[in-house]
Amino acid sequence: MKQRRLIQRGTFVTIDEQLPVYQGWLAMEDGKIAAMGQGEAPAEETALATETLDGSGLLFMPGLVNTHGHAAMSLLRGMADDLALQDWLQNHMWPTEAKFTGDDVYWGSALAAVEMIKSGTTTFVDMYDHMHRVAEVVDTSGLRASLTRGVIGLCPEDVQKAKLEDAIRFAKEWHGKADGRISVMMSPHAPYTCPPDYILKFVETAHELNLPMHTHMSETLAEVEQNVRDYGVRPVEHLDRLGMFSRPTLVAHAVHLNDEEIALLAERKVAVSHNPVSNLKLASGVARVPELLKAGVTVSLGTDGAASNNNLDLFQEISTAALIHKGVSGDPTAIPAAEALRMGTLYGARSIGLEGVTGQLKTGLKADIIALNIGKAHFVPRTDVVSHLVYSARGADVVHVWVDGKPLLRDGQLTTLDEEKIMAEAERCYQRLRA
Amino acid sequence: MKQRRLIQRGTFVTIDEQLPVYQGWLAMEDGKIAAMGQGEAPAEETALATETLDGSGLLFMPGLVNTHGHAAMSLLRGMADDLALQDWLQNHMWPTEAKFTGDDVYWGSALAAVEMIKSGTTTFVDMYDHMHRVAEVVDTSGLRASLTRGVIGLCPEDVQKAKLEDAIRFAKEWHGKADGRISVMMSPHAPYTCPPDYILKFVETAHELNLPMHTHMSETLAEVEQNVRDYGVRPVEHLDRLGMFSRPTLVAHAVHLNDEEIALLAERKVAVSHNPVSNLKLASGVARVPELLKAGVTVSLGTDGAASNNNLDLFQEISTAALIHKGVSGDPTAIPAAEALRMGTLYGARSIGLEGVTGQLKTGLKADIIALNIGKAHFVPRTDVVSHLVYSARGADVVHVWVDGKPLLRDGQLTTLDEEKIMAEAERCYQRLRA
Repeated sequence: MKQRRLIQRGTFVTIDEQLPVYQGWLAMEDGKIAAMGQGEAPAEETALATETLDGSGLLFMPGLVNTHGHAAMSLLRGMADDLALQDWLQNHMWPTEAKFTGDDVYWGSALAAVEMIKSGTTTFVDMYDHMHRVAEVVDTSGLRASLTRGVIGLCPEDVQKAKLEDAIRFAKEWHGKADGRISVMMSPHAPYTCPPDYILKFVETAHELNLPMHTHMSETLAEVEQNVRDYGVRPVEHLDRLGMFSRPTLVAHAVHLNDEEIALLAERKVAVSHNPVSNLKLASGVARVPELLKAGVTVSLGTDGAASNNNLDLFQEISTAALIHKGVSGDPTAIPAAEALRMGTLYGARSIGLEGVTGQLKTGLKADIIALNIGKAHFVPRTDVVSHLVYSARGADVVHVWVDGKPLLRDGQLTTLDEEKIMAEAERCYQRLRA
Repeated sequence: MKQRRLIQRGTFVTIDEQLPVYQGWLAMEDGKIAAMGQGEAPAEETALATETLDGSGLLFMPGLVNTHGHAAMSLLRGMADDLALQDWLQNHMWPTEAKFTGDDVYWGSALAAVEMIKSGTTTFVDMYDHMHRVAEVVDTSGLRASLTRGVIGLCPEDVQKAKLEDAIRFAKEWHGKADGRISVMMSPHAPYTCPPDYILKFVETAHELNLPMHTHMSETLAEVEQNVRDYGVRPVEHLDRLGMFSRPTLVAHAVHLNDEEIALLAERKVAVSHNPVSNLKLASGVARVPELLKAGVTVSLGTDGAASNNNLDLFQEISTAALIHKGVSGDPTAIPAAEALRMGTLYGARSIGLEGVTGQLKTGLKADIIALNIGKAHFVPRTDVVSHLVYSARGADVVHVWVDGKPLLRDGQLTTLDEEKIMAEAERCYQRLRA
């Protein structure tokens, strides 16, 4: 007999315009959402169910999609705060990261996986080195991920070549693996860290392997100005000329954009990963998200690495995105709650080619579902659950997580990862790195 | 035998420059911090202790101080979001609040008390109506509070008079009550809602009763412009001319200030309650907090009411204050983590005359202490606990709370309030109000 999980008497937030919020039931089978409906589950559903969960007092919604990060940097959480991006990168992050072994990447990424699952993220984008070790964490944890070897090209040609080959090897080995939960992108780290001819090679490879691309872009004003000095154009035009946007592309940050750049990103269907907390913490600025959304650009949310955030709770990005653009623009209707929630779910899926796979509760989609305990004071009264999710919920409210219909968190307990061991190993790695 | 609680083997963040962070022990007796020290507790301490708590894996710090709010507005959480302040106030909040009975205020405030205790707030400022019902909640819950009848003076003279008398009656009845945990302030609601001669009466009364003052000030640009139109001066000078700053005064918001106003606030020793989340959500703007701090103004943190936040987790205000001023100013050193933490504790106490009473862990101060479970992924690795508290902690990490040495929360369970009943009653109140 096939396993069929039935959730009864729950509150569902679907991120689907047909029926955004309902009280009712949902059934999972074969890793997918098999059926859903309002009110009490019909007799044939209760008969089919091999496992039933009482959803009273719980809110069910699609798992969150974190579209930019460096999971292994969780090892550096709190190591160097309140510094400017280039100082932070060049004098603190890069020298420490240069010491990272594959084991550090494994335990740092595992630490991130623990935090992401426990705060409701089911899909994440990760750009780093030693990516096969990150892929192992994805495989073991049961998470869904879009992974990419981020390559800095400020190095001799033979090293450049070896890094590109590493990125290609990783793509060939892992794209489509972990029961299809892993996909791969090609990533020159940023226009300011990769010479144009090196970026060109990544674009060519992305075409050959039929993969999307991911990069950091226009995170700081200084890097935009440098781009203009070095190449005569701003980063969007620069990357467009290099053909990057002929591939499906997700750019992270995109803080400093002019109107022409916003129009070009919309025209080329480039998706933007907005990282509001990281951008604030590093004083990079406030991205023009209302304008991007108005222009039709898909804007999703990323935490960035835990060293510049300093946590991976995507609910904080959702609330920060909903709050900051109101305060900075002076328009209290900028990014309403429902739009912020779409940025953390549906738009995240869309930005990495997974719309119709995850990011919504809809029959036929993968059963990537989280449940929050809403029997708490900060969810009272029951005025508007979407508002509560955006302005009041925290990752700590998450009690159950399923990916592909498989439980990764049950009653707040991880089912696939050994949390105590991972915390201890991560601490050990950090102590060695700082020595 | 006297009760003496001993915490052993804990991590302590004191907000005291002498010894900001230590591993060690702390003893409470007679509602106060009786002794504290590094390392293992000496034999005489363990002998004196009538109760011992193993603090391993816990972080102890002063309870948070929330310096501006309207607790009963928790009943309106999520009722009307993503609107401008005046629309939100005049068309949604005020009409519904006009229906509030004393019971609504009681259950709404109790709901707020549940949320505050569970997220680590031990002292709060509350400005509202039916204040004796709020005082009952403070008395029962064991919280510490500075309470004030907020009075809108746009009404006939006899109504004005009755409101002022109500404020005076409340002050006389409750100042110093609840074992000294309640203090009272005098509050004209705002310069734009109270005629000058009415504000003058509050100033006189504050002098007569020897009480501090609290008011909303310069929350929106529109209200500053109106002040200039109506009275020829901006709000700071207006209130200064009315003599308000001859009393110890705490002003909430203070978003729109010019350099002269900042200098005058510093000179008059006026404290500012910064409410970053509410100011962002209502699109009021971003207060000039780095400049205020630089000028020597005491700046603390407030959630404002849950209807404009929409939660009372002061850890979110602490992180938002640390983040937003970096991003908006472009200076990544603006409001470092340690300063944000002082804003949520010591500066909060200072702004309501409670420095030396609460807001720090120091021998002789009241034992207003919270404990966070730091055995979680988002506190790993142990780089900098102050950074973790500001950028990674959430109210949900709080597991124990003491006020006056008395436990209000033990292992996440409330000891003085009936959470289930309060949530049910609050929901019932809301359903009646919206009907």
